Formats: sequence, C-alpha cells, structure tokens
Amino acid sequence: MQTEADQQLKQIIHDPGRILFREEDLVSYGYDASFGFYKPDLVVQAASAEEVAGILKLANRYKIPVTPRGQASSLSGGPLPVKGGIVLDLSQWNDKLIIDSEDMVAVVSPGVVTAQIDKAASKYGLMYPPDPGSSQVSTIAGNLAENSGGPRCLKYGVTKDYVIGLKVVTPQGEIIHTGGRTVKNVTGYDLTKLIVGSEGTLGVITEATLRLIPRPPASRTLMVIFDHFVDSGTMVTRVLTSGILPSKIEMMDQASIQAVEAYQPLGLPTDAEAILLIELDGHPAAIADELEKIREIAANSGARKVTVAESDDDARELWKARKLVSPAIVRNKPTKISEDATVPRSKIPEFCSRLAQIKKKYQIDLVVFGHAGDGNLHPNIICDKRNKEEMKVVEKAVEAIFQAALDLGGTLSGEHGIGTMKSAYMPWEFGPQELDMMKRIKTAWDPNNILNPSKIFPVPGQKLVLSE
Amino acid sequence: MQTEADQQLKQIIHDPGRILFREEDLVSYGYDASFGFYKPDLVVQAASAEEVAGILKLANRYKIPVTPRGQASSLSGGPLPVKGGIVLDLSQWNDKLIIDSEDMVAVVSPGVVTAQIDKAASKYGLMYPPDPGSSQVSTIAGNLAENSGGPRCLKYGVTKDYVIGLKVVTPQGEIIHTGGRTVKNVTGYDLTKLIVGSEGTLGVITEATLRLIPRPPASRTLMVIFDHFVDSGTMVTRVLTSGILPSKIEMMDQASIQAVEAYQPLGLPTDAEAILLIELDGHPAAIADELEKIREIAANSGARKVTVAESDDDARELWKARKLVSPAIVRNKPTKISEDATVPRSKIPEFCSRLAQIKKKYQIDLVVFGHAGDGNLHPNIICDKRNKEEMKVVEKAVEAIFQAALDLGGTLSGEHGIGTMKSAYMPWEFGPQELDMMKRIKTAWDPNNILNPSKIFPVPGQKLVLSE
Repeated sequence: MQTEADQQLKQIIHDPGRILFREEDLVSYGYDASFGFYKPDLVVQAASAEEVAGILKLANRYKIPVTPRGQASSLSGGPLPVKGGIVLDLSQWNDKLIIDSEDMVAVVSPGVVTAQIDKAASKYGLMYPPDPGSSQVSTIAGNLAENSGGPRCLKYGVTKDYVIGLKVVTPQGEIIHTGGRTVKNVTGYDLTKLIVGSEGTLGVITEATLRLIPRPPASRTLMVIFDHFVDSGTMVTRVLTSGILPSKIEMMDQASIQAVEAYQPLGLPTDAEAILLIELDGHPAAIADELEKIREIAANSGARKVTVAESDDDARELWKARKLVSPAIVRNKPTKISEDATVPRSKIPEFCSRLAQIKKKYQIDLVVFGHAGDGNLHPNIICDKRNKEEMKVVEKAVEAIFQAALDLGGTLSGEHGIGTMKSAYMPWEFGPQELDMMKRIKTAWDPNNILNPSKIFPVPGQKLVLSE
Repeated sequence: MQTEADQQLKQIIHDPGRILFREEDLVSYGYDASFGFYKPDLVVQAASAEEVAGILKLANRYKIPVTPRGQASSLSGGPLPVKGGIVLDLSQWNDKLIIDSEDMVAVVSPGVVTAQIDKAASKYGLMYPPDPGSSQVSTIAGNLAENSGGPRCLKYGVTKDYVIGLKVVTPQGEIIHTGGRTVKNVTGYDLTKLIVGSEGTLGVITEATLRLIPRPPASRTLMVIFDHFVDSGTMVTRVLTSGILPSKIEMMDQASIQAVEAYQPLGLPTDAEAILLIELDGHPAAIADELEKIREIAANSGARKVTVAESDDDARELWKARKLVSPAIVRNKPTKISEDATVPRSKIPEFCSRLAQIKKKYQIDLVVFGHAGDGNLHPNIICDKRNKEEMKVVEKAVEAIFQAALDLGGTLSGEHGIGTMKSAYMPWEFGPQELDMMKRIKTAWDPNNILNPSKIFPVPGQKLVLSE
C-alpha cells in the first residue's frame, strides 16, 4: 500500500528534488522553535495549490497525517508532525508578492517572508502593520495560521485584521477561495477569519490577499525608566486613556534589564525595576504634541528618567535594549520556555505581582518583557531541558502562570497559538460545550483527521510534559 | 403537542407579557426594513441567556424555527421569520452598558442601541467606531449578527474588528462564551468572528465585549464638487495613496444631488455629476496639514469647488446633503431596493459606468451614493412594489448590478448581509465546494436547522422575486 501511495505521490510532485526522505532531512523537519521532536515520514516542498490538493486527497485515501510548515519559527509546536506522516513545506513557495497600490492590497504566496511584504508596501507609501518578532524569518502563511501579533499590534491590530481573502486547500483536498479583494465583505460565513488562526488544522493557505494602509509619515521613540515596577503599569493606562494611541508600548522588567547589561552593556540602569519603550507614529506635529503629553504623564507616574530619540539612529539604539532580551536571557542556560499568556490591560500590575510570587515559590529563572500596551506579556523561563528535575519544576511553574492569567480574566495565548504546548490547558479556559463547538467544525471539515492532527484540542488526561 | 410546547414555554418565560401572540403583534413582527412579509406563530421577548437557551432547547425538541430579531432595520431580510415559528425579540433586553476605561472595552446587552455605546464611550475619551446608517435605532446584537459597516469604517474597520468576546446561546441551546476581554487572543478557533456576521444562523448573541479606542481629539469636514463623475473616483484613489486616511469619504451621484435639491433645497449644484464629502479626524495640526494636501489633490483631480467646514455647525450642514439622500429618493415612489454590492477601490469608476448602462438599459430610477473610500457603494432602485410589471424589470436590474460587481472582482454584499434578498445569488460568487464548507458548519452546529432557517444559503433554482 505504502509503495502505491509513493507512486501516486510522484504523479503529483513531478520534481523528485521536492520530495525529501533522507534521514538528515527528516530529522531537521522534526523541530520547530518550541519544545519537542517528532520525525516525519516524508517531506514535500509544495509549489502550487494543485499539488497541495493532490497530496491531501492522497493523504485522505491512505489516512496519512499532513502537517503544513513555513519557517518553523512557531513557539507553540504548530508545525511539529506529532503523528508522523507528511510535512508539507511551503517555505520555498515564495514567487508572488504583488502590491496593488490602488486597491491597497498585497497578494502573496504562502512562503513569502513577512517583513518583505511591509518592505514592498513601503515603496508605495503603504504599510503592512503586523510585525511579529520573527518577521525577518517567518513566512506569511505561518503568521496567518497562527494569527501572529507583534509590538505594532497595539495600535494596528493583529494579522487577522489585515487578511481579506485567501486561497485555501481544504483538509479533503478541495481548492476554495474565501473573502475577496474588498475590505467590506459580508457575503456568507467568514471562512477567512476562521482559517486564519486555526493553526493549520482547517486548511492549507496557498495565497493571501492582505489589506494595506497609508504609511504614517513619521515616528518617534522614547524610553522611560522606573524605580518601581507598578508605576510602569500606571503609566501605560494613563497614556492609553489620554487620547494617545502609541504604535508600540514595550516593557522590560528588572531581570530583562540585568540580562541585557550582562550580555552587552548599553548603559541601562540595572537597579531600575522596569523600562517602557514607547513609539509614536503619525503626523510630525501630532507626535510632537503627544510627546509633551507623555513626558507629563511619565513625570506624574513616578518615572525616574525619560529619554527621547532625536534621530532614527537614536531610536534604533533605544530599541536595541528590547531586541537583545531574547539572546541575552539564554546565555546562562540553553532552554527558554516562552509564554504569552495575556491579561486585560488593567490587570497587568496584578499579573506581574503573581509572576513575582511564582518566581519565588518555584525558584525559577523568570524574565518578563513584552507588549505591555495590550496586556500581552512574555514570561520566559530560562532552564536546561537536560535537567529532568528542573524541568518538572518548570512544568509546575508554567501551570501556575496559566492559572494566574486565567484568574485575572485573561487567556492562555495572545499570539503564539496553542499547538502542542498549551493544548492540555484548553479545558482550563473553555468548558466542554465550547470545546465541542470548535471540534464540530474540525470534524465536519476534516472527518479523517488528516490535517495537522493532535494540535489545539486536548487529549483527556493530557498534561504539559517538558521533562521527558 | 403544540399545547405541550406552549405549556413548556410558560415555564421558561414566567412573565406572560413577554409572550406575544395577538394578530397585530404577529403582523408587525413579520416585516423588516427590506422586502417581504412572513408572519411568525409567536413572539418571545427574551431577557436572559437562560431564557434563550430554554427556548432553543424547546424549539429543537418540537422542531420549531427560531428567528432572532433586534430592531429589524435589516436591509437583507435577516430577522424575517421565513419558516414561521418563534421570533425571538432581543430589542427589549438593554439593561447592561458598561464602559471599562482601563481595559478599554464596553460590555453590552444585545438590545442596547448602537449609538448609545459610542455616546457612553465618549464620556471617557474613548470611541466605538462602527457607525451604520441605522445606528440611532439598530441594536448592537443586530449589528453583530450582520457585521454592519458605516462611513467611519473606511478608517476604523467594520463591526467585527471591534468584537473581542461574546456570550452566545448555540442553536441547540447551550450557553457558551467566546473570546474574552483581551485584544490579543489566539486560544482555539475564533468562534467570535465566525458568529459575528453569521446573520443569526449560528447562535443567539446575549452579551458582547467590544473594544474601544482613544477618541480622536478633532475632526474636520469638506465637500468637493465635480463636473465629471470619473474625476471623483480619481480623487479618492489619490487621497488614499497620499498617506492620508480620512475617517469618511462619502459619494453622491447626480441623481442623489438632484433628489436632495428637489426634496429640500440646500444650494447643491444640480448640474454637478458627483459630490464627495470627506471627514478627517485626529490631531488638529495633522488635520490642518492634510486639509491643504487634499485641496491640492482636489485641484489636480479636476474638482469644480472645495468647501471646508469652519465649525461643527458648518460640518453638520455639509453632512445634511448626504443624510437627506435616503428620505429624498423615496419621494416619488414608495419602494427602495437598496443594494450594497462592493468592488475593489480601483474599480469604482468602472462600476459606476456599468451602473449607468444598467440604468439606461432597464430604464430604472437608479440613484448611487455611499462609501466611496472602501468601494462600498449603494445603488438604490426607486420603484413601486404594487406595480408587478415594474418589479419584474427591477429584478433583472438587480441581477445586472450583482453581475457587474462580481465581474469587477467585487462581492454581493459589503455591509447589509445576504439574508433572503441575496441568497439566490450566492452561487454566482461561490462555487459548490465553498458553499459546502459553509454549510458543513451550519449542519454541525444546528443539525435540526432550527436557528434562522432559509437565510444565506440558496435553495436550488432560487431566484430573486420582488414581483409577488
């Protein structure tokens, strides 16, 4: 039977160079940027919707799991082939990147690197706002599957807010289109926004039409340093209720500041409990005015110091602190468990004090930074996955982080997705009826459970396991 | 059996005053703002999620259709009880309207009038941007069911973009919640955005959490008059690619201008082929600068005249022209068939010339106005539904409008929904596979087809009938 399937596969993918089965290929396709290793049986680098459709029809015939994959920068296990089978690599399919400045849309192939879209749009005075941390390496279809966020989402919204049309291959191998080329569209059920964020479980995205917006003419960055952590939270709320919507408000806690200074000294004050990095964009006159208001709010919120970038170089220098957090924190230990539990804005100070308690209780190396403006913090636990005992404690600490976020009316994931890493905790956020309504869609669309199985939905009794 | 159901209903709705069955009640619940009349068997004014759940469980037991309804300002037949049964009136359930300024959200009951939300938010320096034409009368749950648009959506996006959490009763009567109170949320399938815009066929919305944004500090209105229609389209494109994103760009064609002047003389030039009304909002300094740029663009696009409002009163006076179009055009004949076929921005001039051809070919009274900035025009046919012969011609003209929009890469509906009015044309926009994927969701969620049946999906061989 398997030979039969192999032969049929060669009928679908004529170029044998795009079917990978050597051990070294299979191993390298068994990882993503999260945790765990699952070796696929085969990797196919697809290059057309017809090929994807052919593979999915084949997979349904022989009940072979298919896991779509971009650049595998996922932090939740999205592209891991948990059940083996075929990994469908779409990262090489990047031939289309069209900017239509009149319709203000971009039309892109699945494998186009995210940052390239904004770069191409900028030539027409337009902008593609979503800017996930991985945008220089991640593919757009990966971002679409995960509904990725990023700093600029504070003002501009998430990936989903910019998708108006898709070409998709259904789990049973039919090529469909959803939405279209107009921003307003209420014709039938919104399959576009259902598929975006479904983590590759409801369809394989083969083309996307993205909405672009006029590029703001100017931007300005400032850094605000706080002696007391809680004051930084106060300032965020005061800024957002003052009529100012910055394009970014990023936060670094004391552990992040100290890690960066130990890694590459930038002159950050290691005794400060928090730093806020704020970017304003828009019309220069508006920015100048907003800057003064923000200085005032900072002073009234107990800030120690405000530094305003006077040039683009200055701004890049200030942002360096935030960009260095991720490399800095993995210097002492090799494993980083990056969470993205998100709370309502007003609960940020309380969430941070719960995180401090968790750090103390479990004696873990916990660093907190991220998108303070929208409540989407990144508590990162730095550990060593070879140390089983340590990882057992980390498992407990991760559970405590999820519990804290949910206690405060938040959610398990703000931008990384559920994948394999958080599926065990879905029943903490959703009741059986809610999970049932989600599962009904999966079952109706993918009756053979072919497409990216074992993601999002928990298996009864499932727990997070980092210690094996 | 029916008596048994009646008795059970009284167990669910204790207040007999909220169960309506008199002929005059049933008749008045048989209409909405579109076309057609369908008398329900019973009307229930629900006031809690438990009541709604009880009714839906009862309805599933006895296979009684249930049609949710707000203020019935729908232009597509959404709240019409096509199969009889129970009309579930949610318009009286308006007790909750909470603004949380720190979390920047509003939490509302289904029957709250849309405009009240923005009004309440404005007291905190916040804004709820969606502003459908009916916002002074429509309920928020009706807007959510239809994913309503409005002029301000050009800059701020549609209703769906502002919904982050829902309480919903499923078609089988289970109370679930979707989303939450955070702007970023990628936990599980996005049922929120699936239910919003599903026209009351996938669930009854009993509470919504809406995202609010900082209210822009200032706004400014200008009116631009054109000798040649095509120049107005050119100007729209030039403005949007110049880095300026106005909050509104509304268009009136010559027929609209003449109708308004005949109805209530405002001094509009009846020889002009088009008027654009543009609103800028944001920081006053930015607006002043943008205004100058727009004047320049207008001059270069062949505008005859630009009038800038110098005060709020001036602005209201300019907007009066646009607001009077709807009442003005029904002066000569009583029936208005209001379409909202939407095309990509760049196709507006071509769509307008196709509309002019349709007007000529069918000799219909066609008036075109609407949201030019996002391609969402409103071709309105003015007619008399008592004249069967005339209505047969109107049916053909409506078909020609749909065909023109689809030929140009557009969609059947930008903001009114499909309902009963456009369901016959769904196969013109979607293939059988696409409709099948939508239907699979409906069937999986509502196996007895209880909730708002005979909407969105076409019956084989169905045609638009306005002449009966």
